[in-house]
Amino acid sequence: MNSFQPTERTQVKRLPKRGVYDRAAIYKILDEAFLCHVGFVVDGQPYVIPTGYARAEDTLYIHGSAASRMLRALSGGVAVSVTVTLVDGLVLARSAFHHSMNYRSVMVFGTATPVEDAAGKMRALHAFTEHVMPGRWEEVRGPSEQELKATLVLALPLSEASAKVRVGPPVDEDEDYALPVWAGVLPLQLTAQEPVADPRLPAGVAVPDYVRKYKRG
Amino acid sequence: MNSFQPTERTQVKRLPKRGVYDRAAIYKILDEAFLCHVGFVVDGQPYVIPTGYARAEDTLYIHGSAASRMLRALSGGVAVSVTVTLVDGLVLARSAFHHSMNYRSVMVFGTATPVEDAAGKMRALHAFTEHVMPGRWEEVRGPSEQELKATLVLALPLSEASAKVRVGPPVDEDEDYALPVWAGVLPLQLTAQEPVADPRLPAGVAVPDYVRKYKRG
Repeated sequence: MNSFQPTERTQVKRLPKRGVYDRAAIYKILDEAFLCHVGFVVDGQPYVIPTGYARAEDTLYIHGSAASRMLRALSGGVAVSVTVTLVDGLVLARSAFHHSMNYRSVMVFGTATPVEDAAGKMRALHAFTEHVMPGRWEEVRGPSEQELKATLVLALPLSEASAKVRVGPPVDEDEDYALPVWAGVLPLQLTAQEPVADPRLPAGVAVPDYVRKYKRG
Repeated sequence: MNSFQPTERTQVKRLPKRGVYDRAAIYKILDEAFLCHVGFVVDGQPYVIPTGYARAEDTLYIHGSAASRMLRALSGGVAVSVTVTLVDGLVLARSAFHHSMNYRSVMVFGTATPVEDAAGKMRALHAFTEHVMPGRWEEVRGPSEQELKATLVLALPLSEASAKVRVGPPVDEDEDYALPVWAGVLPLQLTAQEPVADPRLPAGVAVPDYVRKYKRG
């Protein structure tokens, strides 16, 4: 299926022209970001917890170590909402009212279930590491049996999802275009700064290329 | 009150040393970021919606135009969870297991209520604009009466909040420090790129300093 079927929960109702249901377009956003906000309900109270994730095929893996209360709540298999947001720019209009942001955000709904088997956990950990830092997995010590046991991985099938995307310049009221106010977009990007070596790093270990040249998207 | 009293919902239970309850430290994070993820429950289903916000004194204002379903749900005064997350760096350990992120995240719980009066809305819109782009409000056309009516602003008192912060180098297993693997932190920062002028901008309108020199934090 190349597009997600919009559901009551995923259909973009406000500004429907911003809605995206194409699977490839949604996966591209999920693959560029690496932080999600997981929403779940405990005793009627909503919680929103930031955590890392990775996608492999049509599954979203959530790193379960974010908070014990998330683990407790989700390992029973409860409804979650996972949102991933990339801010691409500040949209500066001529009126305060029409200021906006350019962004790409994905919302996924479903039931997360724990990955129990060691092989499945290993695949998910590989996906996490390579998602955040491609090239890293081959260089580091792999997870021990004990570390695998201490890791909780949740799997969420990518079956109900949509994205919302805003691009382009501000949209102002006709009569405001003549105002002598600078208007346009200030693009924003999450960029890597100079790597900071661990104080305990032995002399002579060079910064790998995949760290020096790190770039998302 | 200079510190938030930890509650059942805000106490950082996993890795309690990362918990921050100091009001000034929490406000500093809220003032550096500008995107939040709002969690709320409709018919038992959690929703997590990204939207802009601003803080003024001990109130968090949420821009209500994010989604009509959020407005419908929240204008009745329901429990929300607002999470703000800044990613400061990728923590590269010698083992896959100990990879982490440096981050600062704030969680706020409470009940959001709509700001109904025009003066209150005006204050909130001023706060939004100046929070995202300091210096902007004075230059642009202010909101008309009609625009104020079309704007929904939600206010959430900052009375129940906590932050979770990770800083510093990776923490590896003792026996792994001898591995010839580069380890350390790759700092990440949301940085402004070259401003892109609106195609309809009249000639001769210069990019303002507050745009050219834009920087968060």
